[in-house]
Amino acid sequence: MKTTYITRRETFNAAHKLWRPEWSDEKNWEVFGKCSNQNWHGHNFELWVTVKGNPDPDTGFVMNLKLLSQIVKLHIIEPLDHKNLNLDVPFLEGKMASTEVMAIEIWNILAPLVAMNGGELAKIKLVETENNYVEYYGGKEPF
Amino acid sequence: MKTTYITRRETFNAAHKLWRPEWSDEKNWEVFGKCSNQNWHGHNFELWVTVKGNPDPDTGFVMNLKLLSQIVKLHIIEPLDHKNLNLDVPFLEGKMASTEVMAIEIWNILAPLVAMNGGELAKIKLVETENNYVEYYGGKEPF
Amino acid sequence: MKTTYITRRETFNAAHKLWRPEWSDEKNWEVFGKCSNQNWHGHNFELWVTVKGNPDPDTGFVMNLKLLSQIVKLHIIEPLDHKNLNLDVPFLEGKMASTEVMAIEIWNILAPLVAMNGGELAKIKLVETENNYVEYYGGKEPF
Amino acid sequence: MKTTYITRRETFNAAHKLWRPEWSDEKNWEVFGKCSNQNWHGHNFELWVTVKGNPDPDTGFVMNLKLLSQIVKLHIIEPLDHKNLNLDVPFLEGKMASTEVMAIEIWNILAPLVAMNGGELAKIKLVETENNYVEYYGGKEPF
Amino acid sequence: MKTTYITRRETFNAAHKLWRPEWSDEKNWEVFGKCSNQNWHGHNFELWVTVKGNPDPDTGFVMNLKLLSQIVKLHIIEPLDHKNLNLDVPFLEGKMASTEVMAIEIWNILAPLVAMNGGELAKIKLVETENNYVEYYGGKEPF
Amino acid sequence: MKTTYITRRETFNAAHKLWRPEWSDEKNWEVFGKCSNQNWHGHNFELWVTVKGNPDPDTGFVMNLKLLSQIVKLHIIEPLDHKNLNLDVPFLEGKMASTEVMAIEIWNILAPLVAMNGGELAKIKLVETENNYVEYYGGKEPF
Repeated sequence: MKTTYITRRETFNAAHKLWRPEWSDEKNWEVFGKCSNQNWHGHNFELWVTVKGNPDPDTGFVMNLKLLSQIVKLHIIEPLDHKNLNLDVPFLEGKMASTEVMAIEIWNILAPLVAMNGGELAKIKLVETENNYVEYYGGKEPF
Repeated sequence: MKTTYITRRETFNAAHKLWRPEWSDEKNWEVFGKCSNQNWHGHNFELWVTVKGNPDPDTGFVMNLKLLSQIVKLHIIEPLDHKNLNLDVPFLEGKMASTEVMAIEIWNILAPLVAMNGGELAKIKLVETENNYVEYYGGKEPF
Repeated sequence: MKTTYITRRETFNAAHKLWRPEWSDEKNWEVFGKCSNQNWHGHNFELWVTVKGNPDPDTGFVMNLKLLSQIVKLHIIEPLDHKNLNLDVPFLEGKMASTEVMAIEIWNILAPLVAMNGGELAKIKLVETENNYVEYYGGKEPF
Repeated sequence: MKTTYITRRETFNAAHKLWRPEWSDEKNWEVFGKCSNQNWHGHNFELWVTVKGNPDPDTGFVMNLKLLSQIVKLHIIEPLDHKNLNLDVPFLEGKMASTEVMAIEIWNILAPLVAMNGGELAKIKLVETENNYVEYYGGKEPF
Repeated sequence: MKTTYITRRETFNAAHKLWRPEWSDEKNWEVFGKCSNQNWHGHNFELWVTVKGNPDPDTGFVMNLKLLSQIVKLHIIEPLDHKNLNLDVPFLEGKMASTEVMAIEIWNILAPLVAMNGGELAKIKLVETENNYVEYYGGKEPF
Repeated sequence: MKTTYITRRETFNAAHKLWRPEWSDEKNWEVFGKCSNQNWHGHNFELWVTVKGNPDPDTGFVMNLKLLSQIVKLHIIEPLDHKNLNLDVPFLEGKMASTEVMAIEIWNILAPLVAMNGGELAKIKLVETENNYVEYYGGKEPF
């Protein structure tokens, strides 16, 4: 076996805030700082999707990147891009729009879709700024 | 004369939308596309501020970058970072929050402040995404 | 007047070689080095297109970036992407496929198209590798 | 034990196409899309080579990076840089020039050479564009 | 369990040399090359600190990034930034200032501090130049 | 005339401090802050050298980039790389090692060398960190 990992990047731009309605303004500020600004702020997000597998002898591909890109664009980028993560995104409804939670929810959507297409989702990496990002391996703990 | 140009980068994350209230939803969509999403979207902005001058013989500096950084942070980054550009920013009130307009308004604020500190503002560059940015030279047309 | 410069990035991946058929292999090697490899080599090119103008009071735009992007994609990226610059590109036929020549030819195509859409082309920047790029201002010499 | 991982980057520019001669043009297009262009296209590739080990108490090095760089340049970059991956590269002859296959073949060449010099190859990462890359751990599945 | 990994970047600029006083100049040159320059050289270092954990249901956070940033700045960046790694840094005293050794020492300082604050340090990545970096997982060997 | 600008990047890693010996420690600290650390600090510098000219009809080149690279490496990178800018560099002796001064001195060395080889030096850009850089146009003021 020659398990290889391929990664595709897609990007989206979105607004969000970190805010719990049942908390006071003071508590929200204390915990979330300027990320709790009531009127939102936003980011250019980078999403890196990693699929693992054995390269197909005919194509040399673990999975066709065009297909992977189409799946990610249709199911993840379309609902997130130029949207408000707290208000506009069905799969984030009622959840904190932290990068951790987003990465987990993105995994939950993509894992079965990638499997249906003969791949195995291995990792979601979500970059929020040049100074921070989140990685999720479906709950696995590689390190 | 040895005119030299120094540039300092600062960053901020903000939400905005491109939307004219007197236009119909259809017209807003036609002109601004997904940037007109009612519930906002957002970006990691990079602001590059360029000051020109003759290096001081004692310091080798056109202008002290610490001082330039403090001015930019206090007067521009503070009011923009983790804010809604349409709702929260006094100097953008009643204006379209396009990168062009933002660059011009940032110039208008910084030019006299830089001058007061012995420098000459030469250029504002505002990067909205990895695929687009705006430059403003105070109305000059270098090319 | 508030002349502002907006820039849009598009990318393409292409093969080329630097080779003059009327020269000997030795002369080609001497002048072009490994870029003269008979069987081609290739690059991920970045094209940065800059348009200047006065922001429109209604939109805050020098030019609609969606429109600019469509023009660049249709007339430049489409014929260059995943192509052989020496063999497949009508507007480079019979010309050296150096980044300098490419930038000039791209300018010649885009300048009238941008003008037809109410903009003024100001600069073409073509990045070949992380270590080199070319800029062309339509023959102007800003510096 | 203080197992540490060091990584060295080298770059090369090359042409390739994804194309199976026994398939029709239509099938090649269907599977490989624009990557199947008969006259080739190309990329700026980045190769990241990771070696693991215990830092030497005298040097603080897992492996001397100068030596690692020399090995990678001589055995990998030299045969790939400014070459056609389908035509010019002995170690890719008769193979699909996908990034997956390239990463595996690079591993197969480098693993014994690194071992001979007292190191242990841990990972090959091959970046084809800013939007996709491949990782290979010698068949191991860290995640 | 939904173990997620969050990473925060901090930067510092420092001077160092690779040099063993008990070795001759020739031996130092042979092993360390230009890195052994007696009068030092320097780098812009990037430090990436990764913490793992289960996102808190209230905040969506593995660990508050503001808090992580404060810990890293106070205990690592403060003693390293604009310093000489061989002369000015208590926790590197008497040690080779290689990136490997630095990454291990940074881990040793941060691991208990992160644990005290309810997190679990998972990885230290230290980038010295655009061409090399080191990773340390506390001695674990994920691959 | 088709004046085009080509740019080549070279990098070097060096130590320096900003410090005037005739000033007190307090004054040095007040003006130069942490850059005045007695035991030096350092950076990964990026040098971007721009040459202008009309592309040669035979080669498509403003100037051969291999030749430009050789000139820059021999006369600038060789004396600066892995050196102490205050102690080891003849052309900076007795001068403040600020990026402004360095850019001017690099211009003074390169301008005649580029001219001797049929080019015209147009710009020196020296990047010290991801947050600041200096540009020098030989004293010209393009904007």
